[in-house]
Amino acid sequence: MSTAISFDTHNKPQTIRRRIKNSFTNTCSVKTVKKRLPITQWLPKYNGTLLIQDIIAGITVGLTAIPQGIAYAVVAGLSPEYGLYSGLMGGFVYLFFGSCKDITVGPTAVLSTLTAKYVANYSADFAVLAAFLTGVVSFAMGILNLGFLVEFISTPVISGFTTSAAMQIAAAQLKSLFGLSGSSGNFFAESMYNFARNIKTAKLWDPVLGFSTIIILIILKKLGNGCGRNDNLQKQLRWFVSLARNAIVVLLGIIVAYILKVTTFSEPLILIGDIGSGLPKVQPPPFSTVVGNETYSFGDMTRTMGPESIVLPLVAILESVAIAKAFSEGVRVDATREMIALGLCNMVGSFVRSMPVTGSFTRTALNHASGVQTPAGGVFTGLLIILALSLLTSTFYYIPKASLAGLIITAMFSMIDYTIFPRLWKVSKKELFVITTTILVCLCVGLEYGIVTGIIVDAAFLLYSTARPFIDIETITGEKGDLIILPLPVKLSYCAAEYVRSTILKASQTAVMDSIIVIDGINLRHMDSTVASNLVSVVKDLEKYSHKVIFLNFNSDMKNMCLDLNPKFINKFVMASNAIDVLDVSTRNA
Amino acid sequence: MSTAISFDTHNKPQTIRRRIKNSFTNTCSVKTVKKRLPITQWLPKYNGTLLIQDIIAGITVGLTAIPQGIAYAVVAGLSPEYGLYSGLMGGFVYLFFGSCKDITVGPTAVLSTLTAKYVANYSADFAVLAAFLTGVVSFAMGILNLGFLVEFISTPVISGFTTSAAMQIAAAQLKSLFGLSGSSGNFFAESMYNFARNIKTAKLWDPVLGFSTIIILIILKKLGNGCGRNDNLQKQLRWFVSLARNAIVVLLGIIVAYILKVTTFSEPLILIGDIGSGLPKVQPPPFSTVVGNETYSFGDMTRTMGPESIVLPLVAILESVAIAKAFSEGVRVDATREMIALGLCNMVGSFVRSMPVTGSFTRTALNHASGVQTPAGGVFTGLLIILALSLLTSTFYYIPKASLAGLIITAMFSMIDYTIFPRLWKVSKKELFVITTTILVCLCVGLEYGIVTGIIVDAAFLLYSTARPFIDIETITGEKGDLIILPLPVKLSYCAAEYVRSTILKASQTAVMDSIIVIDGINLRHMDSTVASNLVSVVKDLEKYSHKVIFLNFNSDMKNMCLDLNPKFINKFVMASNAIDVLDVSTRNA
Repeated sequence: MSTAISFDTHNKPQTIRRRIKNSFTNTCSVKTVKKRLPITQWLPKYNGTLLIQDIIAGITVGLTAIPQGIAYAVVAGLSPEYGLYSGLMGGFVYLFFGSCKDITVGPTAVLSTLTAKYVANYSADFAVLAAFLTGVVSFAMGILNLGFLVEFISTPVISGFTTSAAMQIAAAQLKSLFGLSGSSGNFFAESMYNFARNIKTAKLWDPVLGFSTIIILIILKKLGNGCGRNDNLQKQLRWFVSLARNAIVVLLGIIVAYILKVTTFSEPLILIGDIGSGLPKVQPPPFSTVVGNETYSFGDMTRTMGPESIVLPLVAILESVAIAKAFSEGVRVDATREMIALGLCNMVGSFVRSMPVTGSFTRTALNHASGVQTPAGGVFTGLLIILALSLLTSTFYYIPKASLAGLIITAMFSMIDYTIFPRLWKVSKKELFVITTTILVCLCVGLEYGIVTGIIVDAAFLLYSTARPFIDIETITGEKGDLIILPLPVKLSYCAAEYVRSTILKASQTAVMDSIIVIDGINLRHMDSTVASNLVSVVKDLEKYSHKVIFLNFNSDMKNMCLDLNPKFINKFVMASNAIDVLDVSTRNA
Repeated sequence: MSTAISFDTHNKPQTIRRRIKNSFTNTCSVKTVKKRLPITQWLPKYNGTLLIQDIIAGITVGLTAIPQGIAYAVVAGLSPEYGLYSGLMGGFVYLFFGSCKDITVGPTAVLSTLTAKYVANYSADFAVLAAFLTGVVSFAMGILNLGFLVEFISTPVISGFTTSAAMQIAAAQLKSLFGLSGSSGNFFAESMYNFARNIKTAKLWDPVLGFSTIIILIILKKLGNGCGRNDNLQKQLRWFVSLARNAIVVLLGIIVAYILKVTTFSEPLILIGDIGSGLPKVQPPPFSTVVGNETYSFGDMTRTMGPESIVLPLVAILESVAIAKAFSEGVRVDATREMIALGLCNMVGSFVRSMPVTGSFTRTALNHASGVQTPAGGVFTGLLIILALSLLTSTFYYIPKASLAGLIITAMFSMIDYTIFPRLWKVSKKELFVITTTILVCLCVGLEYGIVTGIIVDAAFLLYSTARPFIDIETITGEKGDLIILPLPVKLSYCAAEYVRSTILKASQTAVMDSIIVIDGINLRHMDSTVASNLVSVVKDLEKYSHKVIFLNFNSDMKNMCLDLNPKFINKFVMASNAIDVLDVSTRNA
């Protein structure tokens, strides 16, 4: 007994009208609204045990979210409180719309560095508007079911982009790590150039503290190896210290800075300085702004950000969906739902001056390891951030920039994927070329340009290979003449039309007299009208030179496409179970 | 006995270095130089009989080339002598570098209308520079073997573009046909709008002459039906009159205009007016120019023309190669050679103030029908044009614009392809969508934007279909549990990775307990590393939920790609001639 389930999208195409209708109905039904609001599924079953587990996980994540938030605000070139603002709303919004319990939405290193350019060249308002627009675009892509677009970003491109982003972020932090003066640069090459140029302005205490931070972080990370939440008390403590290492090094930095200030009556370390205290005002994102003496309208602002800013929502979706998949544990991820949730997080966030946010891999992993049970965990992370904004901003004054630089640079080590290069070298030089190109453009021109270049190079390779299908010509020598058989593949697209034409011509030119050219369509299921018209025209050309051509085993659709162009060819279409039979058929016909 | 010739580009890929080397060697060898200079092949065999036939054909073509040249200069908005200048050099250059004896290089309606925008908004210098740049780009594309790029323009896009171009050209001529005042417009919608707005300024004599011209042209065309060069004298005369119909209507127009002037002592018809007399000065193309009070440097000029001007060389190549194929009579067309010839024709032409030129379908067909024997025919066309430039420019003064408008509009009738719409409606709604989009954008935004939109829409469909391969899932119910078999296709590209992943997950979710999921790789020959990593990760996910997964009949390359990512999967790879055997294998392993 055998049943066949078919997921074909070619053989039974929906009409476009029906698709639009379905898509519309899907968007608006009650069932869909329920599906789009996952909270309706888990809230009724919520209880005290789950609550306690969520609180513990939420606070653990908060201890990382605060120093990371400050650090990523610094990466974006923003004042530190922006990092905290950005961590505020994600948890609350994701609570309602998020489907994956582990995901923590907030600022990430990559999005921050993509935002940095606008902040450095214009103002913080651009970062907030970027968050709003990122939200609008991901929301719209979710509603319109356009999530499949991220499938066109291949692993080599993602990997090259991530590696380059890590290198750029680390390179931009060298300035703070060494306490240099001057600017850091919009892309890796520029940052390294500026670093080399300014290295003479290096201070003493900043690099000492920065490198100490890095060493401590590495030690603390190793400390937690092999320890878990459910081990004995000593191991549990080691596990927790290791998880809270980011908070610990920042706290150590603060203590060092404070002691140095009290003992030396000066500030030998470069500090974060004054932080806007308290909660942000709730207000619409800045749809116009003033930079220097110039007023930018909404149109000016979007024009300034340029078409390359489409990379922001794309990367945000990519990060979020990839993380959702990593933590989905075999359940299918509804990318549409994730995009809508992400869009709302960004749009709502932009009302409290958030920069662009997305799922954070580090904090999501930490959330998972801390045993979070529902998306409610994010709420407690948010509450902890509110507490920090209310009470701790005067303490944050003493955070040394070198500590943050150490923290950021250490986090970047794990983002670089070294293993992909030898692997691609072994299996695919083409993909190695793609990743190399992506990285070079990312490092030397800018991250946005790199990822877009990678996508285009990939698509170009794909289109080119579609234009050169594999046709394995076979010649059978018979008594009455040769049979030259050209088996067509399953699918021929318009760009392969010319190749098929020239392959047939080439085959005919190598043929001896009285050969029969057999165009074997047994596998052919799809062809464009461009291919059909090339087939018909080449056969017409060959006829002039009295080559005999036969279309073997074309199905009726394919046959009709050709006959529509030249009804006289009806006798050329032959069905035969064996190519050799064609000889008999053609002899009988002749 | 059977021999296999393989044209595969996938299975035995050349290394990139070797390809570059080959391409370099190919470009520089003596054999290649000979191949690139087709004159070396036919000139040694040239003789008196061939010469006479070439002279007759060349002069016949010249009789069409002169009125068409003037008409297309008018289409481009240039002074009429530009059309004659443009017809000058093509024949001489193509003599040396052209491979197809019939092709006549000169101004064409489509290229002229693409140039019109620059002439209307700036100056004639832009048309000459456009010719030079078109030449440089086609030459470079020829040398770099990039001719395959035009294969990515499908028949629906070409057809939509040609139809729109014809409509635009005809619409732009309505102004001259009715003798209206005002401007004509840069694209169809604009021209029609301007026509409607200015219709009240219509004159009497211009439309009368214009419509008469159209009627006479149609009658003269019908007159030649069924007559040929080798018929009896009467039919031969009808054939010749029919071929020379363009020259005849222009001559009639001149006579009418002259008589009207002499009898009424005024100029009731709008005439072409003064034409620059004599041969053009040989000088470099204008690398800087002055428009109004502004000086444009070379950089300014290219920036003004913008990236969309890449459409000019693309269309020029497309026209030329398509015509070469139509007249190649079963011989393979060397697109590279045609592009180099075309590039040189344009570059050399720009030194005598030519606008962009390419192969002309009408005149090539005429050349063929007139029995041309070698590319030498073009020389005599060129000589006739020189004669016209030297002696006839004072006569050309009297050419009525309405005659030319009638001539142009009549030529456009045959450019519109009506049959493609019902055909595509029957065989492919997708391609119907492509042609409709192309036409709409062409008519309402501009021809360049339309063709580029068509190319992008086509590529998007192609990429999308590659991302959704056909996987026909089969479930075999056995005693020890179900077998769910997913046969993978021949090729899986990165963009299909996510689809394959979710198809496998979907299949696993519908499965009953103890089912074995069989990923059947018997057909799989190529996959990207993105696909491999998705395969490995989905299997890992499924394992967590104790689904049993087997990779059946993967070849060693495909197997190694997966094992590189997770060596522990070695036991999951199974070879079996029948899927049912898998049940035994897996039972034995368990």
